Amino acid sequence: MQTKATLLTIGDEILIGQIVDTNSAFIAQQLNKIGIEVEEIISVQDELNHIIEAFQRGISTSDIVIVTGGLGPTKDDKTKMALCKFLECELIREEKVIENIIHLFATRGYKKELNNLNQDQALIPEKSTFIQNKYGTAPCLWTTIENKVLINLPGVPFEMKGLMRDEIIPRLKDNFQTDIIVHRDILVSGIPESDLAILVEDWESQLPEFIHLAYLPNRTSIDLRFSATGDDEVVLRNLIQQEIEKFKLIAGKYLVSENSGKAQQVLGDLLKQKDLTISTAESCTGGNISTLITSVSGSSSYFIGSVVSYATSVKTSVLGVNQKDIDQHSVVSEQVAKQMALGACKVLKTNLAVSTTGVAGPNKGEDDNEVGTVWVSVTNGQQTINKKYFYPYLDREDFIKIVSTNALNLVIQFVNQNYQ
Amino acid sequence: MQTKATLLTIGDEILIGQIVDTNSAFIAQQLNKIGIEVEEIISVQDELNHIIEAFQRGISTSDIVIVTGGLGPTKDDKTKMALCKFLECELIREEKVIENIIHLFATRGYKKELNNLNQDQALIPEKSTFIQNKYGTAPCLWTTIENKVLINLPGVPFEMKGLMRDEIIPRLKDNFQTDIIVHRDILVSGIPESDLAILVEDWESQLPEFIHLAYLPNRTSIDLRFSATGDDEVVLRNLIQQEIEKFKLIAGKYLVSENSGKAQQVLGDLLKQKDLTISTAESCTGGNISTLITSVSGSSSYFIGSVVSYATSVKTSVLGVNQKDIDQHSVVSEQVAKQMALGACKVLKTNLAVSTTGVAGPNKGEDDNEVGTVWVSVTNGQQTINKKYFYPYLDREDFIKIVSTNALNLVIQFVNQNYQ
Repeated sequence: MQTKATLLTIGDEILIGQIVDTNSAFIAQQLNKIGIEVEEIISVQDELNHIIEAFQRGISTSDIVIVTGGLGPTKDDKTKMALCKFLECELIREEKVIENIIHLFATRGYKKELNNLNQDQALIPEKSTFIQNKYGTAPCLWTTIENKVLINLPGVPFEMKGLMRDEIIPRLKDNFQTDIIVHRDILVSGIPESDLAILVEDWESQLPEFIHLAYLPNRTSIDLRFSATGDDEVVLRNLIQQEIEKFKLIAGKYLVSENSGKAQQVLGDLLKQKDLTISTAESCTGGNISTLITSVSGSSSYFIGSVVSYATSVKTSVLGVNQKDIDQHSVVSEQVAKQMALGACKVLKTNLAVSTTGVAGPNKGEDDNEVGTVWVSVTNGQQTINKKYFYPYLDREDFIKIVSTNALNLVIQFVNQNYQ
Repeated sequence: MQTKATLLTIGDEILIGQIVDTNSAFIAQQLNKIGIEVEEIISVQDELNHIIEAFQRGISTSDIVIVTGGLGPTKDDKTKMALCKFLECELIREEKVIENIIHLFATRGYKKELNNLNQDQALIPEKSTFIQNKYGTAPCLWTTIENKVLINLPGVPFEMKGLMRDEIIPRLKDNFQTDIIVHRDILVSGIPESDLAILVEDWESQLPEFIHLAYLPNRTSIDLRFSATGDDEVVLRNLIQQEIEKFKLIAGKYLVSENSGKAQQVLGDLLKQKDLTISTAESCTGGNISTLITSVSGSSSYFIGSVVSYATSVKTSVLGVNQKDIDQHSVVSEQVAKQMALGACKVLKTNLAVSTTGVAGPNKGEDDNEVGTVWVSVTNGQQTINKKYFYPYLDREDFIKIVSTNALNLVIQFVNQNYQ
């Protein structure tokens, strides 16, 4: 029997679109690892009745409700009040919370008297137990309701993450017997989603019931996700692998990566395996490829550095791009992309380099290239591949994101072709 | 009377935490601009009954329900089937959708016969009207239910964004008379959230009812957000400004920026105003500061480029950091941060440069500095400020994010101090 969770995020800032709710994705990942499935994610405003109603809904459909946000000391934070009304109980004062706040303030160098609002953070609904929060002033709350549990966490991401890892996951493991959920993604390219679905139709219908398949189409590729539920992780992983082998017999030529998910992770593993170093020379992506590569822990063993040559002067002076080629072919051209990559290889002394030059928009750049045009090059000093993409419909943010992913995938392709 | 919306996101990928739901933030921002308030955001799995139930809930509480996802051609996409069941109607075929798909495939160079799954995309619930999607194969659906409306959009971000801008927002403006909502953020630093709340308590209680105040605490600062609702944008903006003037009389010394929100936007406006150029020299932030700066449209007028010196060799060879200082003080030190910034100023020929060197973790770097230690420097070639931060509890992702924001705020502070 699958244990089910509802995630509830409280805060006006999400409802007005000021911040993206990244907490829910983190919590969902953590829960999936211990076999707890997230049924629903809800975000509501800092509004008392709305919060109470969401508590009610979550606890009626799920075994576990994890709530983030609204525990702060100021007027706009209403979660504790809502919790008292929902549980029909009063607040009681827990001195240990005060001790924690005094300790926290001391380590932050505040050394101050606690004011009334700080004092109020020690008030806990009497039907809840509190879990000390060493990352911040608002304690975590754990409330058992019959055989279910409602957990309140602060909304500040680093406090929430620390509490999830240190306190919540271990307790949930103890309290709920759960199946394991295993996810694995493979990356397919060069075929439209609908054609792929028809090509692998027979294979898809013979998948065992505990393996679920999902299509996640991107602009230039499709992520195929396998999700398997059971009680033994190794067995599940082997069964997924067997299905991937069958898939390869039918559609192997479209398979780009057997372990996709994040291109920067796939690339990192590949570079470590082949003992290669890399650098980037970025114009329109503005450092985003570098940011993606360094988001992977341990990337310092293969990533050396980048030159972000946003201005043309940096392309010529630092990367050694020939001014004549810029004049003749424009700054967004195959020639310039190639010379940027070669320049990064040389200046930063790496085995490989990848470069981008394009027009992210919304306005045209120095030359007459259309918004959405971009050239990407990958080189090892000898061999080079250059590829042009054109995304006229993308906004600036999506353009940078998609070009960066394409660039990482082009490097993966280059390494696979040239370093057997 | 406020028009209210529910946003509904459909897709297992969100519930397992594989992707972060960025669509909802975009849609919420767009709706707020035309005075429509988002009451609730819901994400559910690709599961028929769950989707139907969410439709029901949204339409019973809100005037507008905007649904994204689940319109694709493959088996895991179930939104249209759920819509038919919810509306109690059949699917009918719309030839114009087929024409659009043929046109799209031609522009993408596929030039192929449409398969059954493509043909199925032309099937529309008979109680809905379709809106042509020039960005993809799945049409947008618009269903009127009494005086309310349920809108289905594809989940692919660039398709959704294009349809929202071109089609949905204009239609919603025509169909719903709405108040205007105006948001404005100011950035406060150097005072704990609870002390600030007490300091400005009297002022806060005298705020008119249509102006709502929210505290958004970060690690080192607090965003104060004003949200005002009414029928005249100029009047609302003026009233918020009047309140900010009163706030300044009480807590002016803690005010860092009168228009915060995003530091990269504030910095961009400041650099344009002062006619200054900037570059970055990044180690532990891996290019993220550069990525943030270039995320602002028009940043090419003040941003020249970056050197991401992840490896120590790049710090010495490209930025000219003295090897002796690295040996003596370690690579994470005030001396190295300062020389990196000065190096970027010189090599990239900019008025200002900002640098970072630190240990993002989870593992220690080349030297013995603790994980979470970072030095940030800002220089104009003559004056320099160097600042140390220590975030031992942050994970890699949050560390990079917070150090990058701190660095941008340090540049803002530097410019305000040195360029009156």
